Amino acid sequence: MTNATGSVKILAFDVFGTVVDWHGSIVREVQALGLGVDANAFALAWRAGYFPAMDRVRRGELGWTRIDDLHRMILDAVLVKFGITSLSPEAVADLNRAWHRLDPWPDTLAGLHRLRARHTLVTLSNGNLGLLANMAKRARLPWDLILSAEVFRHYKPDPETYLGVAQIFDVSPGETMLVAAHKEDLRAAAACGMRTAFVTRPMEYGSTKRLDVSPDPAFDHHATDFLDLASQLDC
Amino acid sequence: MTNATGSVKILAFDVFGTVVDWHGSIVREVQALGLGVDANAFALAWRAGYFPAMDRVRRGELGWTRIDDLHRMILDAVLVKFGITSLSPEAVADLNRAWHRLDPWPDTLAGLHRLRARHTLVTLSNGNLGLLANMAKRARLPWDLILSAEVFRHYKPDPETYLGVAQIFDVSPGETMLVAAHKEDLRAAAACGMRTAFVTRPMEYGSTKRLDVSPDPAFDHHATDFLDLASQLDC
Repeated sequence: MTNATGSVKILAFDVFGTVVDWHGSIVREVQALGLGVDANAFALAWRAGYFPAMDRVRRGELGWTRIDDLHRMILDAVLVKFGITSLSPEAVADLNRAWHRLDPWPDTLAGLHRLRARHTLVTLSNGNLGLLANMAKRARLPWDLILSAEVFRHYKPDPETYLGVAQIFDVSPGETMLVAAHKEDLRAAAACGMRTAFVTRPMEYGSTKRLDVSPDPAFDHHATDFLDLASQLDC
Repeated sequence: MTNATGSVKILAFDVFGTVVDWHGSIVREVQALGLGVDANAFALAWRAGYFPAMDRVRRGELGWTRIDDLHRMILDAVLVKFGITSLSPEAVADLNRAWHRLDPWPDTLAGLHRLRARHTLVTLSNGNLGLLANMAKRARLPWDLILSAEVFRHYKPDPETYLGVAQIFDVSPGETMLVAAHKEDLRAAAACGMRTAFVTRPMEYGSTKRLDVSPDPAFDHHATDFLDLASQLDC
């Protein structure tokens, strides 16, 4: 534990990619449907629509819209793009809920249980509350509080989300730390006064896409997984 | 399990009085301060300010104000009323956080663990998110999701709170059930289409105040504690 981060009380976790393996989980769900498509390409196309869709909400082009509904809008377009017409409306709705059934990374549960002994663990995700609750129940993620863009009515990287964590617990931003696999997310958190832990997830987009997981001295911690982070935080 | 409530997926719990024993906990905290006051009267006076304070917010007389801040406004008045001037600012702030440290009723944990096997358990409390998260971490309350008036920016019994539970999980109100020790809360929930379970907590206000815990046929379940409710729901 460094002096700089010794006063951290609240650990706020990005979820998609940091806590759970969305790519591997979506690939498995798509493969299980037997559609004869490239499941890797399908998963990447679905995720590629994610940031542009949230940006439409952030710019005010779309009113407040939950991730479940954004995922569905993107899915409908991806199904057209891949020429898939064989799924019933119920099957499409169920596929959209695959994001409620994402599997954690192998280190996630053990790491969270170690970290939880000394910190309050919360999510800070753009996923909606129902999605995050269903995911946590299925995967047994031991959150002390599920926080979502839905609570703040702002998507990350809007500052209302990062500052909201400290406000909810009546602490200063410097007593909170964002744990994320995404440098942009961490940079936006740091700009709001949060401490930062970069956890590398080189396989987040599968094996066909290379990610930048190089250390960045701007972040307080650089960890290879949650167990490594727990050790660095003396947990 | 009755046919009427067989499709219930989400159990939403009132917290103060239903899940935790606020009276006994506040009495113990006040006694531990050694102020020489009647701790029972002090606890009742503090709680007596609760509903009028929330009503000021509900009527728009006060802007959105968290329960932590309402508790503090009431506490300041109660300290004056009881002639207490010996507490430091830090001690007053800590006493206000006694509401984060309320103890569960003896059946609470065992009952929640049984109910959780077949249902999603959420809070539906006027307490703020930070308060409810700190309480749950300390008492090990196994919530799947902590929902609060703070999420909806409305206090119970405003309908936005009851309807919000179903909306969060994308289910119908009839697939949600409010569990509460307060008949007014349950009546407001039923008016929004929620199922209802009345759990009697005859000692909620201590031994000096008698409560109406008579059965009411308007509610779907009448239970003496969470273990009884679990049995009625086949959990």
